[in-house]
Amino acid sequence: MYSLMKKLFPICRSITGNGNRETLNIIKEIIPINIIEVPTGTKVFDWTVPKEWNIKDAYVLNSKKEKVIDFKTSNLHVLSYSIPTHTTCTLEELKKHLHYLKDLPDHIPYLTSYYKENWGFCISYNDFLNLKEDTYEVVIDSELKNGSLSYGELIVKGLSDKELLFSTYICHPSMCNDVLSGMVVNTFIANYILNLKNTHKYTYRFLFIPETIGSITYLSKNLDYLKEHVIGGYTITCCGDNGNFTYLKTRLENQLTDRVTLHALSNSKINNYKVRDFMTAGSDERQYNYPGIDLNIGSLMRTKYYEFSEYHTSYDNLSFNSEENLCGTLSMYIKCIDIFEFNENFVVNTYCEPHLSKYGLHSDIGGSKILNDSSIILQFLYYCDGRDFLSIAEKLKIPMWELYDLSNILLKNKIIRVESQ
Amino acid sequence: MYSLMKKLFPICRSITGNGNRETLNIIKEIIPINIIEVPTGTKVFDWTVPKEWNIKDAYVLNSKKEKVIDFKTSNLHVLSYSIPTHTTCTLEELKKHLHYLKDLPDHIPYLTSYYKENWGFCISYNDFLNLKEDTYEVVIDSELKNGSLSYGELIVKGLSDKELLFSTYICHPSMCNDVLSGMVVNTFIANYILNLKNTHKYTYRFLFIPETIGSITYLSKNLDYLKEHVIGGYTITCCGDNGNFTYLKTRLENQLTDRVTLHALSNSKINNYKVRDFMTAGSDERQYNYPGIDLNIGSLMRTKYYEFSEYHTSYDNLSFNSEENLCGTLSMYIKCIDIFEFNENFVVNTYCEPHLSKYGLHSDIGGSKILNDSSIILQFLYYCDGRDFLSIAEKLKIPMWELYDLSNILLKNKIIRVESQ
Amino acid sequence: MYSLMKKLFPICRSITGNGNRETLNIIKEIIPINIIEVPTGTKVFDWTVPKEWNIKDAYVLNSKKEKVIDFKTSNLHVLSYSIPTHTTCTLEELKKHLHYLKDLPDHIPYLTSYYKENWGFCISYNDFLNLKEDTYEVVIDSELKNGSLSYGELIVKGLSDKELLFSTYICHPSMCNDVLSGMVVNTFIANYILNLKNTHKYTYRFLFIPETIGSITYLSKNLDYLKEHVIGGYTITCCGDNGNFTYLKTRLENQLTDRVTLHALSNSKINNYKVRDFMTAGSDERQYNYPGIDLNIGSLMRTKYYEFSEYHTSYDNLSFNSEENLCGTLSMYIKCIDIFEFNENFVVNTYCEPHLSKYGLHSDIGGSKILNDSSIILQFLYYCDGRDFLSIAEKLKIPMWELYDLSNILLKNKIIRVESQ
Repeated sequence: MYSLMKKLFPICRSITGNGNRETLNIIKEIIPINIIEVPTGTKVFDWTVPKEWNIKDAYVLNSKKEKVIDFKTSNLHVLSYSIPTHTTCTLEELKKHLHYLKDLPDHIPYLTSYYKENWGFCISYNDFLNLKEDTYEVVIDSELKNGSLSYGELIVKGLSDKELLFSTYICHPSMCNDVLSGMVVNTFIANYILNLKNTHKYTYRFLFIPETIGSITYLSKNLDYLKEHVIGGYTITCCGDNGNFTYLKTRLENQLTDRVTLHALSNSKINNYKVRDFMTAGSDERQYNYPGIDLNIGSLMRTKYYEFSEYHTSYDNLSFNSEENLCGTLSMYIKCIDIFEFNENFVVNTYCEPHLSKYGLHSDIGGSKILNDSSIILQFLYYCDGRDFLSIAEKLKIPMWELYDLSNILLKNKIIRVESQ
Repeated sequence: MYSLMKKLFPICRSITGNGNRETLNIIKEIIPINIIEVPTGTKVFDWTVPKEWNIKDAYVLNSKKEKVIDFKTSNLHVLSYSIPTHTTCTLEELKKHLHYLKDLPDHIPYLTSYYKENWGFCISYNDFLNLKEDTYEVVIDSELKNGSLSYGELIVKGLSDKELLFSTYICHPSMCNDVLSGMVVNTFIANYILNLKNTHKYTYRFLFIPETIGSITYLSKNLDYLKEHVIGGYTITCCGDNGNFTYLKTRLENQLTDRVTLHALSNSKINNYKVRDFMTAGSDERQYNYPGIDLNIGSLMRTKYYEFSEYHTSYDNLSFNSEENLCGTLSMYIKCIDIFEFNENFVVNTYCEPHLSKYGLHSDIGGSKILNDSSIILQFLYYCDGRDFLSIAEKLKIPMWELYDLSNILLKNKIIRVESQ
Repeated sequence: MYSLMKKLFPICRSITGNGNRETLNIIKEIIPINIIEVPTGTKVFDWTVPKEWNIKDAYVLNSKKEKVIDFKTSNLHVLSYSIPTHTTCTLEELKKHLHYLKDLPDHIPYLTSYYKENWGFCISYNDFLNLKEDTYEVVIDSELKNGSLSYGELIVKGLSDKELLFSTYICHPSMCNDVLSGMVVNTFIANYILNLKNTHKYTYRFLFIPETIGSITYLSKNLDYLKEHVIGGYTITCCGDNGNFTYLKTRLENQLTDRVTLHALSNSKINNYKVRDFMTAGSDERQYNYPGIDLNIGSLMRTKYYEFSEYHTSYDNLSFNSEENLCGTLSMYIKCIDIFEFNENFVVNTYCEPHLSKYGLHSDIGGSKILNDSSIILQFLYYCDGRDFLSIAEKLKIPMWELYDLSNILLKNKIIRVESQ
């Protein structure tokens, strides 16, 4: 995952443009996504797909023709969606178009102006302080024209047409935790599912879309189908830093995705994890959970956007993420997928307890002074009354994965059956 | 309010009689109540409207013709509903008709004997101890005859025929917190509503009735209409002392009146307020919430009856109440009325988030590292899923009144709509 | 009860056999149970009634013809359901058939092998250590043949055909807390009910059955009727030790039996009682509460099986139980029965409060500064809105039994009525 991240890092992405296409094509080398183009001007609910933006170069020259700001050294230097510009100006005039962070004087901020035509540069506060009175030449070699918004989609069919949705966004330039980590983890979740070779229960839908306008566009094209089929899923971001896990709950809370993820987190031997209310949502789950949409999508992260100082700056770079952290997050996602897959509603097949000895599931000598191995079988059976596996595991206070074998034995012996949900 | 209280203080009131009519007529000078008379003997549910009682004078003379007890110095001296009496007796015989409070030796208690014919005097324990062996002449110049029970009613029509009920009792003689404070606050709530000039949503019903027999009488005449239209309200009493607020919950709890009042109290910057269970109810909410009546009426007070030592004694006088305290209570009632009025069920009008920039509700520069002003708009919208405004404010942990402007902007821009409840 | 326990103590019982019949006949001398026989081979749900087992004698002789193990000294010495055996063996061979408890070296364990043909002896670990290399002669004079399973049943009709079920097991040999205490308490509960001479509301069903196979057999013969009529009840065991009370909840929790028993326990002035989750069930409540059976049966015990070291050993003997402890448990069961009997859904008969003075239920002098006796009447009435007596008592935080008289007065005066549940 980390080498994919390194390959994707230099590309300048935005909500539209060639950088996004290049990104999607690199992902397509690993998993067979379809790349879809939606033309500028398409109405998508309350929004309109904007013009396509591409940029070749951008810089600011001082009077000695030295580049005091240079897009080539960091694509964060340009306010995303800056219009083509070639002008000469004083320092005072230039300052109106400069953005910086006083509190983080070494960090270049990441900013955008998608829906209001504008141009600007983002620089560190230290660099800003070094700018002298002078005449500056500003060049932004960009293009804003009718084109299209690009996104990637992969659907992996399962035994059921009920779906889990995994969505990540592709619209940020060179930042790792807040954009690339989500893309690489989503790619490798898809890869994991593809390797299961359709033995899985659920159909899996993987999306690589620009944030907000991308999910709105996608929902406007697919809403009815998604509402009927999606039973849960995640927006994936902030997967590569070394912080503890954070789970952002669905809007309605206590939905299947919440129950699955919180079971995985609370039963794994991990350091303190954090749980955040949907109110603090910041990515595409805002659309997926909007009232009336309600796909009940959560988000499993390490340190949440807004909660690390590197967020939306040049410091969210390759050294802020690691293969090890990405793998830890991938594993936790796979643990959740397993829970989704195993989670069935069980019902007993016998009136009263089954005669466990008949099935070789009970010690031949009875009367032991202590609860023995067969006790856990009985305790499991007591709650096979139509509730789901997750509820049984919660009731027994046992990680669900430690009960997978037991549930299979009981199913094989027809002591319990799966009841359709 | 305090000057109205002073004007009403000297009048001797009971559950019937001219004192009540005089009281209602003084209130009528401020708000246009109707005064209704219900004849003695009228059957009202399990009760019967009693005879009307009036009193001109009462005293006890010692053998030197000195008045040792005198109704003219305090109308609490006479057991309410004392029958006409003129007799001579020993101290021992007199004592059978004397009531006092050993624990509060300076206080004259307030007592009644509405439904059993009797006579008596209430005096301070110190005065009781000073009584010597002597021959006493007892005079009670009262009258108990067929007449009527009087009450006041004011209905202020709103845009809807759904109603809020505000009820206070008028049946006690010269006491302030436990009778007059409720009357004056109820009068000025009505005055406030009248000044809104019918722009309010709800219809408001104000009652000035004798306690218990009055509310039972009123309910027996209006029950079906009230059950269909009243959505909440208050019995008003104990509004003028300087204690913290107390809220007495409705019988069924968690009703709209409870939610409104507890939101107002918990979000106002006030000292600790108290909450009391309906079980400790003591005024007309007992009838309004009786099983099968269930108008879901609460009571917002300062110090609750039974919980201050001046209660039902001569010490509950004008110096125990103040204009400032009465105004504070009135303000809190108006805060609750505003919440009732603003509390609508909201639903979003767009699929997915609206494009806030279009409405001038979003900063043009995106990507800020921190939650900005538009975040509160989005957080508000996330919960416009049919739940009521009060629930949204509780979810956002923001006083509802700080969201009134925001809700109006969203309604005006048609981003949300009101769903009929 | 203790003398009945002493009479039953010496008998060797198992899940079938003459010991059980002898036991049931002794109980029949006190209460008129029917004794029912179910033939070997009868299919009962997932199980089959096993062969009948009887034993006359069993011992192990050393080469000096000394009895080193002797069934006559304790019937726990023989693994229950040991097949007829007469053999000679070395110490090493013998040891394969010996069972003991290393941690409790003086205790003879109680063990069984009902469903796998086997033979064995249970001895103390100290006795085990004393066994020397020798040639041993093993004699088990038992019989395993087609016969029947025996159980006792007594149904005492009440005014309603709704039933409370009281079930105890009879299948253990000489142990007191874990078998005999349940039998004697169940016998005397039945005796108490019989003495009520059919004035009780519920029909009572008392069962004396072998554990597990007995309740499964009983349910297989009576399931439909029981499901329609049983509203709660208990499995009775572990009633005679001097530990605090323990309540084992029904599988579904918060059922009537749970509410009744926890009300009785929490409102009695007793030492800390314990509550156990159904997951730790160990007796016939496992069957009565199995998913799809759901008779909602709890278990009120003193120290629960598994939780005292004497459990399933020779130390669970007559000195471990006492008449006083048995009586305390019986009293608590009767307290629960009273709650079941008194628990009705009440509704008020009047609109608004009744005029209590008319019924002599209110002080003639009104206006008291403190809540007086009639307050409790009103508080009770406020919650007569169709909820059950138990809920009213819980709301008022008063033991239900302290409200029995009040409820009778209100019913007699027709101020409230019983609403059919």
